[in-house]
Amino acid sequence: MNSIEQPASTADILNSVVSDINSERLEDLSNKLDEFHPSEVANLLESLPPVKRKILWGIIPGEQEGEVLTHMRDEARAAIIEEMKQDQLLAAAGNMNASKLANVLGELPNDISDNIFQALEDDHRKRLETVLSYDEKTAGRIMNTDVISVRQNVTLAVVLRWLRRHLMLPVHTDALMVIDEENRYLGKLHLSNVVIGAPDELVQNVMRSDANSIKASCSITEVAALFERRDLISVAVLDENDHLLGRITIDDVVDIIREQADATLLKSAGLNEEQDLFSPILPSAKQRGLWLGLNLITVFFAAWVIGQFQEVLDEIVALAVLMPIVASMGGIAGSQTLTLTIRGLALDQIAKSNIKWLTMKEIAVGGLNGLVWAVTVAIASFIWFDNKGIAIILAVAMLLNLLAASLSGVIIPLILNRMGIDPALSGAVILTTITDVIGFLSFLGLASLYLL
Amino acid sequence: MNSIEQPASTADILNSVVSDINSERLEDLSNKLDEFHPSEVANLLESLPPVKRKILWGIIPGEQEGEVLTHMRDEARAAIIEEMKQDQLLAAAGNMNASKLANVLGELPNDISDNIFQALEDDHRKRLETVLSYDEKTAGRIMNTDVISVRQNVTLAVVLRWLRRHLMLPVHTDALMVIDEENRYLGKLHLSNVVIGAPDELVQNVMRSDANSIKASCSITEVAALFERRDLISVAVLDENDHLLGRITIDDVVDIIREQADATLLKSAGLNEEQDLFSPILPSAKQRGLWLGLNLITVFFAAWVIGQFQEVLDEIVALAVLMPIVASMGGIAGSQTLTLTIRGLALDQIAKSNIKWLTMKEIAVGGLNGLVWAVTVAIASFIWFDNKGIAIILAVAMLLNLLAASLSGVIIPLILNRMGIDPALSGAVILTTITDVIGFLSFLGLASLYLL
Repeated sequence: MNSIEQPASTADILNSVVSDINSERLEDLSNKLDEFHPSEVANLLESLPPVKRKILWGIIPGEQEGEVLTHMRDEARAAIIEEMKQDQLLAAAGNMNASKLANVLGELPNDISDNIFQALEDDHRKRLETVLSYDEKTAGRIMNTDVISVRQNVTLAVVLRWLRRHLMLPVHTDALMVIDEENRYLGKLHLSNVVIGAPDELVQNVMRSDANSIKASCSITEVAALFERRDLISVAVLDENDHLLGRITIDDVVDIIREQADATLLKSAGLNEEQDLFSPILPSAKQRGLWLGLNLITVFFAAWVIGQFQEVLDEIVALAVLMPIVASMGGIAGSQTLTLTIRGLALDQIAKSNIKWLTMKEIAVGGLNGLVWAVTVAIASFIWFDNKGIAIILAVAMLLNLLAASLSGVIIPLILNRMGIDPALSGAVILTTITDVIGFLSFLGLASLYLL
Repeated sequence: MNSIEQPASTADILNSVVSDINSERLEDLSNKLDEFHPSEVANLLESLPPVKRKILWGIIPGEQEGEVLTHMRDEARAAIIEEMKQDQLLAAAGNMNASKLANVLGELPNDISDNIFQALEDDHRKRLETVLSYDEKTAGRIMNTDVISVRQNVTLAVVLRWLRRHLMLPVHTDALMVIDEENRYLGKLHLSNVVIGAPDELVQNVMRSDANSIKASCSITEVAALFERRDLISVAVLDENDHLLGRITIDDVVDIIREQADATLLKSAGLNEEQDLFSPILPSAKQRGLWLGLNLITVFFAAWVIGQFQEVLDEIVALAVLMPIVASMGGIAGSQTLTLTIRGLALDQIAKSNIKWLTMKEIAVGGLNGLVWAVTVAIASFIWFDNKGIAIILAVAMLLNLLAASLSGVIIPLILNRMGIDPALSGAVILTTITDVIGFLSFLGLASLYLL
C-alpha cells in the first residue's frame, strides 16, 4: 500500500537528489529513481541546472528514457535530446507512443527524424503515420491508437471470453468501442456494463449509442472543453466518415488543461509556454530581451507624450511627481477588467448578445472607483502641494483614465480575439500603453490648458 | 451518435438563448435545455446578466436544479440561491452529492443550512456529516462515498455474480476497492482485471496492492498533483487507521486543476477566484476598489520618492520625461522572473538546493538585457535631448534597476511562500513597488549627484 499522507515532499526529494549528485552517490540515486513515476523523474530533471541534469539523465535506465522524455516540457527535452547519441534516441523512440513521438520528431533536425522514422517497427511506424497525418493541436494528433473494439451483434459472454484472451487491457480502458463490419463507430460499451450485464445480452442492447465521439480534425481546446463539461474518461476519435481511429483519454486532457493554463500565465509576461526554468543564460536573455524591446518602444511612446508638455512640467514640478499615479491606477483598473474578459472568453461566456451589458457594467465599475479614488488623491495631493488647481486636475485625469481603462479592458481582448491574436499574450502590453498615454495626456494636457 | 465535429459553437448557443429570452420564446428555450449537460446549463447561466439569468433559471426543471447549482462558481451560485424559496432549496439539496452539498451549505445563513440539514434523508445526512467532518480543501471534503468494495478472499466469479445484482455502477468506476473484514483498505481491483481474469482466480491474486491511496486529511493540491503525476482515474480515501471512506475521481480533480489555474490568473489582478463575470456593479466595484486602494498607497510612495528630487527635476525637465522608462523596464523584467519563479514553485521545481543557481542565472539574464537595452536607451535619449550626462545616467539607472528586478523576481515569491502568503496574489504589487522606487531613486538620485 502506498499512502501519501506523510510523503517526502517534492522539495525534500529534490534536495536529496541534489545532495546525492554533489557527493557522487550515484548508486543510491539510481535506487531512489526506481520508486518514481516517469513523470516525477521528468519533473526532477526539469528542476536541475544543466550540469546536474546531465548527471541525473546519465543514470536513468535506457528502457525508461523514452517514457521520461515524453513527460518533459519541450525546451528542457530539446536540451537533453541534443546530447543523445543516435542509437540512444532510436531506442527511446521505440518506447514512445505515436502521439508523443510525433511531438518529439517535430523538434528534431530532418535527417535525424527521418532516420528514427525508418528504424521504427512497421506497426509503430504505421501508427505514427496516422497521427502525423493530422494537424498539430488536433484530436488526431494526440489520440491513442490502442483502442479495443467489438461488434454490436455479439453477446456479452462472447465479449468476456474474448477479453480474457488479453493479458492486460490498455490503461484507462473504461469502455470498449462498438463498431460495425466496416469499422464505423456505433457507440461505447462500458466495462461496468460488461460486468453487470447478463451474459446472454447482446452488445447492441447495453451499449451507449449516445456516447460522445470526436472527429480527428477537432481542436484540442474543444476536446478539453468536452471532457470537462461532460466529465468523460475516454472518447472515440473518428475520421470524416465515422471510422474508428483511436481514442483520447482523460490523462492526456489533464495535460492539455495544465499546459493551457500554464501558457496563459507565462504569455502574460511575454514568456514562451515551454520555457525551461534552468535554460542557459543566453537563450533566456534573448527570448526575454525581445519582450523588453517591445515594451521599450511603447514606453518611449509614453515618454514622447510627456515630452510634449515640457513647458508645463518646467513650470510646475509637482506635476512630474504626481503624474505616475494617474498612469499606474489606470493600468491596475484596466488589467482587472482585461483579466476578467480574457477568462470570460476562455470559458466561452462572452458572445455578441452580452458584450454591451458587460461593457456598460465595467464602465460603471470603473467610473465608481474612479470617483472614489479621484476624490481621495485630490485630497492627498492638496495636503501635499497645497494647490487646488493641481488637485482638481489630478482627480479629473484619474477619473478619465479609469473610464478609458475599463472600456479598453473589455474592447482590446475582444478585438484581438476577432483578429485571431491571443489576448493573453499581447493584451496587457496594449492596455498599459493606452492607460499610460491617456494618463499622461489627460493630466499634463489639462494642466497646460488650465494652470499655465 | 453525438459527434462534435461541427457543433453549434458555445457563442452561437449563448446568442440563441439570449434571443429566445428577449422574444419570450420560453418553450423553445426549455426544449433546447434538455439537450445540454448540467455543466453547460451552469455555464450559460454564468454568461447572462442578472435579469436574463433569472428568466433562464426559472425554466430549469426542478429536478435538475441541484445538479446545475453544483456546477456553478460560488459567486454566481450565491446570487441564485439567495432568491430561491426554502422548499426549492431543500429539493435541490436532495439531488446534490455530499461533497458538493457541503460546499453549498457553507455559503448559506446558519438557520437555512440547519433546516436543509434536518430535512435530508438519513443516508444522505450521514454521508454529509462524514464529509463535513473534514476541513475545507482536503480530500475528505471532496470525496465521493459511493464506492464499491469487495473482500480479497473471494473469486472473480463471485465478484462478477455480485456485481450483476447492480442495475448500474457509480459513474467513473474503473476499479473496486478491496478491503479486509474491518473495512481496512488493501488495494484496488480494476474492472479490466475482473473481465480478463480467470473466473476461479482469487481477488487477492489480481488486485493491485501497490495502488495509491489518499488520507482524508490530505490537501486537495496534493491530491491533484498525485492524479496528474500518476495518471490516475480514481483513488481510495482512507481515515487515519486506513479504513476505506470513499474515493476521489478524476473529474473532480479536473475541476480542482481548472479552479487553481483560474485562481492564479485572477489573483494576479487582485480579483477573487469566484468572481462572477456578471455580478452587480456595487459588489464588483467594492472588491476591486480595495485592490486599487492598495495600489494607490504603493504608487503614492513612489511619488514621494520622486518628490525628494524636485530640485533636480525643476532644473532638468528631460528627467521627468525619461524617468518612466527606467521604472517600466524594471517592472517588465521583474515580472518575467517573478512569473517563472511562481510557476517553478507551483510545479515543485524549486528547492533549497537550486535557489542559488536560479538566482545567479536570473541576475545574469537581467544583467545581459540590462546592458543591451541600457546602451539602446542611452543612444536614443542622447539623440533626443543631446545631453551626454543624462544619457549615461539613464543607462546606469536602467542596468541597476534590471539587476534589482531580477533579484526581486526570485526572492519576493520565495519569501512570500515561506511566510505562507500566496505569491500569485501579492507578488506583482510588491515587485512593481520595488522596481518603481529603485527606478526613480537610481535615475533621479544619480542625476542630482552628477548633474546639479
